[in-house]
Amino acid sequence: MTGNSLGREFSITTFGESHGKNVGVLIDGCPAGLPLLEEDFQKELDRRIPAQHDIVSARVEKDCAKILSGVFNGKTTGAPITVMVENRETRSSDYDQIKDLPRPGHSDFSAHVRYGGFNDYRGGGRFSGRVTVALILAGVIAKKLLSRYSIDVLAYTVSIGKIRSDEKLGFVQTRKNRDSAATRCPDLVCAKKMDEAIIAAKNVGDSVGGIIECITLNMPTGIGEPLFDALDADLAKALFGISAVKGVEFGAGFAAAEMLGSQNNDEFIVENGKVESVTNNAGGILGGLSSGMPIVLRVVIKPTSSISREQKTVRLSTMGNATLSVTGRHDPCIVPKAVPVVEAVVAVTLVDHLMRAGYIPKVLEEKNEEKR
Amino acid sequence: MTGNSLGREFSITTFGESHGKNVGVLIDGCPAGLPLLEEDFQKELDRRIPAQHDIVSARVEKDCAKILSGVFNGKTTGAPITVMVENRETRSSDYDQIKDLPRPGHSDFSAHVRYGGFNDYRGGGRFSGRVTVALILAGVIAKKLLSRYSIDVLAYTVSIGKIRSDEKLGFVQTRKNRDSAATRCPDLVCAKKMDEAIIAAKNVGDSVGGIIECITLNMPTGIGEPLFDALDADLAKALFGISAVKGVEFGAGFAAAEMLGSQNNDEFIVENGKVESVTNNAGGILGGLSSGMPIVLRVVIKPTSSISREQKTVRLSTMGNATLSVTGRHDPCIVPKAVPVVEAVVAVTLVDHLMRAGYIPKVLEEKNEEKR
Amino acid sequence: MTGNSLGREFSITTFGESHGKNVGVLIDGCPAGLPLLEEDFQKELDRRIPAQHDIVSARVEKDCAKILSGVFNGKTTGAPITVMVENRETRSSDYDQIKDLPRPGHSDFSAHVRYGGFNDYRGGGRFSGRVTVALILAGVIAKKLLSRYSIDVLAYTVSIGKIRSDEKLGFVQTRKNRDSAATRCPDLVCAKKMDEAIIAAKNVGDSVGGIIECITLNMPTGIGEPLFDALDADLAKALFGISAVKGVEFGAGFAAAEMLGSQNNDEFIVENGKVESVTNNAGGILGGLSSGMPIVLRVVIKPTSSISREQKTVRLSTMGNATLSVTGRHDPCIVPKAVPVVEAVVAVTLVDHLMRAGYIPKVLEEKNEEKR
Amino acid sequence: MTGNSLGREFSITTFGESHGKNVGVLIDGCPAGLPLLEEDFQKELDRRIPAQHDIVSARVEKDCAKILSGVFNGKTTGAPITVMVENRETRSSDYDQIKDLPRPGHSDFSAHVRYGGFNDYRGGGRFSGRVTVALILAGVIAKKLLSRYSIDVLAYTVSIGKIRSDEKLGFVQTRKNRDSAATRCPDLVCAKKMDEAIIAAKNVGDSVGGIIECITLNMPTGIGEPLFDALDADLAKALFGISAVKGVEFGAGFAAAEMLGSQNNDEFIVENGKVESVTNNAGGILGGLSSGMPIVLRVVIKPTSSISREQKTVRLSTMGNATLSVTGRHDPCIVPKAVPVVEAVVAVTLVDHLMRAGYIPKVLEEKNEEKR
Repeated sequence: MTGNSLGREFSITTFGESHGKNVGVLIDGCPAGLPLLEEDFQKELDRRIPAQHDIVSARVEKDCAKILSGVFNGKTTGAPITVMVENRETRSSDYDQIKDLPRPGHSDFSAHVRYGGFNDYRGGGRFSGRVTVALILAGVIAKKLLSRYSIDVLAYTVSIGKIRSDEKLGFVQTRKNRDSAATRCPDLVCAKKMDEAIIAAKNVGDSVGGIIECITLNMPTGIGEPLFDALDADLAKALFGISAVKGVEFGAGFAAAEMLGSQNNDEFIVENGKVESVTNNAGGILGGLSSGMPIVLRVVIKPTSSISREQKTVRLSTMGNATLSVTGRHDPCIVPKAVPVVEAVVAVTLVDHLMRAGYIPKVLEEKNEEKR
Repeated sequence: MTGNSLGREFSITTFGESHGKNVGVLIDGCPAGLPLLEEDFQKELDRRIPAQHDIVSARVEKDCAKILSGVFNGKTTGAPITVMVENRETRSSDYDQIKDLPRPGHSDFSAHVRYGGFNDYRGGGRFSGRVTVALILAGVIAKKLLSRYSIDVLAYTVSIGKIRSDEKLGFVQTRKNRDSAATRCPDLVCAKKMDEAIIAAKNVGDSVGGIIECITLNMPTGIGEPLFDALDADLAKALFGISAVKGVEFGAGFAAAEMLGSQNNDEFIVENGKVESVTNNAGGILGGLSSGMPIVLRVVIKPTSSISREQKTVRLSTMGNATLSVTGRHDPCIVPKAVPVVEAVVAVTLVDHLMRAGYIPKVLEEKNEEKR
Repeated sequence: MTGNSLGREFSITTFGESHGKNVGVLIDGCPAGLPLLEEDFQKELDRRIPAQHDIVSARVEKDCAKILSGVFNGKTTGAPITVMVENRETRSSDYDQIKDLPRPGHSDFSAHVRYGGFNDYRGGGRFSGRVTVALILAGVIAKKLLSRYSIDVLAYTVSIGKIRSDEKLGFVQTRKNRDSAATRCPDLVCAKKMDEAIIAAKNVGDSVGGIIECITLNMPTGIGEPLFDALDADLAKALFGISAVKGVEFGAGFAAAEMLGSQNNDEFIVENGKVESVTNNAGGILGGLSSGMPIVLRVVIKPTSSISREQKTVRLSTMGNATLSVTGRHDPCIVPKAVPVVEAVVAVTLVDHLMRAGYIPKVLEEKNEEKR
Repeated sequence: MTGNSLGREFSITTFGESHGKNVGVLIDGCPAGLPLLEEDFQKELDRRIPAQHDIVSARVEKDCAKILSGVFNGKTTGAPITVMVENRETRSSDYDQIKDLPRPGHSDFSAHVRYGGFNDYRGGGRFSGRVTVALILAGVIAKKLLSRYSIDVLAYTVSIGKIRSDEKLGFVQTRKNRDSAATRCPDLVCAKKMDEAIIAAKNVGDSVGGIIECITLNMPTGIGEPLFDALDADLAKALFGISAVKGVEFGAGFAAAEMLGSQNNDEFIVENGKVESVTNNAGGILGGLSSGMPIVLRVVIKPTSSISREQKTVRLSTMGNATLSVTGRHDPCIVPKAVPVVEAVVAVTLVDHLMRAGYIPKVLEEKNEEKR
């Protein structure tokens, strides 16, 4: 594979473009025996589109998953699984100008050079946020696998623009509140201010970014393949596969620069007969291996690049300077939509490493409730 | 390969442990025809050990590279290159306690679980900073390749503890000043304060962390393999392969969360007949492809985990609580030593992607000065 | 990827099962700029089904290719290409007995063990010859690429059962005659006898095997990645990916065992200013690298495993001995159908290696006739 | 890795050249906890050099293995293992003519083109049979692993030139007799005739080839990763990684072409409560998965290319025709030396697939006899 695949044992390859027929994912290496139906994908597909429409793009696609291969009698077979959703609402004419006027903040210019002009530029084509739907499809399967082992991945918004939630809600409350707010911020007071920040930006044709935190509970200790396929390394790689991500940090992250070793080190203690640590500045990963503590990471999502405010760009055909106001439907903030994508990508990477470690086997045992 | 390899076309695999016979690297895919001598490695090996010894560990290893394969008549042949340095000064007895008392902040406990107790625990074994010497060896070859294409990778310290250099020196001055200070901070006024911060921590048996910035000039446009082998994704993966790294960001990085789209987007202009951008908040990478602007990234290095201050830990044999004061020689700050490692890892990743794109060929043309 | 992918730069992953919705292929790494339409696949899809129906199975599927991604304005974009054909004529009830009574010569029993009984057993599922349609789809694209470089891959039948064609027709005549006979044997006298051998076997509820030869003209010299990704090694791997193949040989092949070195060595001569060899016992590959001479290989295809003659097998549910007569529609000889599959698999492997060597670039130049 | 690696979970990368400092192998993915000493390699290294020197080359290298990494306290640690042997007896002057006069049957010309003349041509450099020592090193470790699971790999000579042993000795007798004869043919009557055939060829400055059979007992059922990482596909790939191999077949192999389906199919029976087959024409592999029956394969080894008889070649510097008589020490038949190499390569591939299937774990349990 040459760039569109992720993972080694649980390996996903995405395909499709923003304005093509469909976007989808081929998964090779999914264990045999996992119950899987097309309905299983719906909840996560719907999560991408918050119910509160004033802060998201007017393009509302009701996506439905279609399984093409790898499932028989309602269970995975061990063969490659292909799942896709069709692209229904694609107004390609909105994007005609991109061909000659690359949008600032987008990959249009780089892609034009890289693919010699043959790339599908409509809506950013292969580089569109639309393609993250394929990640969500893969994430659904990964999360089903993780849940068999009580491993729980939970992402949520911690900041939008200058609004930052510092309240520590705990895992249970966070999970409970998370989908309540369109911004996916579980701190509901903060979430309201975030809404306002987004609408303020939108009203002036601008956009805002933010930070997403993701926490994983119940990871076993010692998972990862140092040095280079370290767990943090592969998580970071997967997360940077989301185009809007410009930074990834674990545990204390960049704040560790200002800490003393004695502050940053997580002291070990015995707790209920298990080795745990008092603090978790490492974010659950030491030397590239899971430490047994929750995996905690944060990613920064840049403000949406597509804005209607006029910006300078270049007319490629004449190599002259030009200006551009990006028309069409755009989210003033893509952080909320990115929340389930971050979860999906983390889940996929964890499943891959759990399979590499032999923790998840290649054939699942049948659970009682699954038998017919 | 199962975790110890990095890269696809220019692929490196490291081997060796802190207290084993040697550490080294096997490089598969290096183009044929690159002049390479054992002396070529010396300068970078020496850079790891700043001349000013009061801020570094007392273990001073004079490392010399030995080429085992892949070079004939002073040039690479296209066959695998193996280079290694011997471990001379290894006092294993310093580390005996690790076996039963995992050091906080280290991988000792995770590795014990992962490898069933069979891992070489001496000095952290495979997880020791010592192993980064192998990265430097690979980096020397990568940088020689990049220099043929005038691509220049430069890393330097921007913060140590709470001391942060905000002065923008420009590339030429940065390069000139960089190795002047033991801390590898080109802002020499700041560098002095950093020295003091390190010594202050050392004096109380503690340690400090910091941030390293790395800038790459003259990268061609359109390099990278989206979605998953995106240039930023692979750089991040490689950088997290350095154990002490806890965060990676590109361009504006985490600061992008607080910017508006109109502030963060880099507007395009025509400059000398070339498409450039007015700002570089993207850090030279858009949609996972190089944009033609300098690649700018930052990593946070956590404070050295080995400190002599007493910390809580667990006695594995009895599963009882215990305390530990890490003895032996340790750097109170590993940021300076990490600077050439960051450069090496970035150079290796860029060469790999330049080869994937066909920009660096598999057989180099002979330059005039190389002919005999 | 974990087993269903082939190739490194031009990488194909197949999906689908015999009696599922479809079979298809995802190609990652196809160069941008190759003209590609759904019609382009038809000729090769039709070649699988010889016009003379008395020697093939009664299941006649008219397959039509559907492109799901990676093509824009009639040309490849550099993004993953997904192509598939639907499975229309699937009578699953024919195969119900397989579940408990594994067919001799088939993978039914091994697959049952490997996938814990979750595999789709209908018609052999993932192991069915039907899945080779996906290889043909990939081969169409590979051959289009090769033809731009005048590289010509040609497979044909050289033996069926005990009937063996020893006549050397030359490339032009071979190409001309090849599709004339249902058996795909260009020696038309021999082809007639082969027909008879197949019908004779069919009439007694039995089957026959045979040998396919494949020749490739105009391969450049020095292609391959020794030691392990040698050109012959990767061709053999790809060919054994076709289930019915039980042996692969290059040039003189197994006959080399009985030759003296002086007979087997191909002496070099200068011919029209180029280095050639007088003979080609090496089959165009030396030390894993192409020698510049035609690549000549042969594969043996075992007789069809599904036969109506009664055979011993085992009833898995009771672990008792049983007998089985395989019903349903089966080819008494699959050699003819395998001919285009061999070509496809060879073409895919050659494209991959030509891309690895940089001989085929990642972005194709537009030819004059392609411009609009 | 780009061509010099084999295997995915148990991954080996070889390095070194015929006349360089050493040849060696780096193994990534070897389970932790395997007892391993430098002495363990000696027996197999010695097997390469039959005691009866009249049929082998006069270059007699006593090779001793040196472990550079990955072993601690006499056991593997899970980190990369590097093992090498030094090249002691290298008379490079013997090979000076190769530079300009490529030897027929060798890769000299192809390699010259591929590596732009930068390759180490001495003794064939990277393409020399000497490099197979690295395979033997890897094979020693692989066989130690297999023996823990009672899996037994046994290769032996079945033909040399026109002398072919058709006697079926059975596994026990074969193992007993195997190393008795210099030709590694367990049929000792035949072995004598083979000796004579080799000496006859040697006396006229010529060489002979032959066929090696390899049988593996006790492989579990269902191992392999169809379609493309099928067990036979990966075995064939690995075997073609030995340069002199020109053909590989499993079970009935090429003879299957002439069999009817009813003859070739292996009927299943229940034997001691296990599913077995009456015959083993499949050679223990069906649909790319192990069937539980012994794995039986054969490879053809071409006659040694280096012969002292005069042959035509080309003078590259002038592009004129020339003649060449290869001087230096050469084996008139490399089949005996290839026997342990075939075993090694098969063992490495089987371990890799057993690890991929989870059958061999990443951390071995300590056996009683290993404890101290």
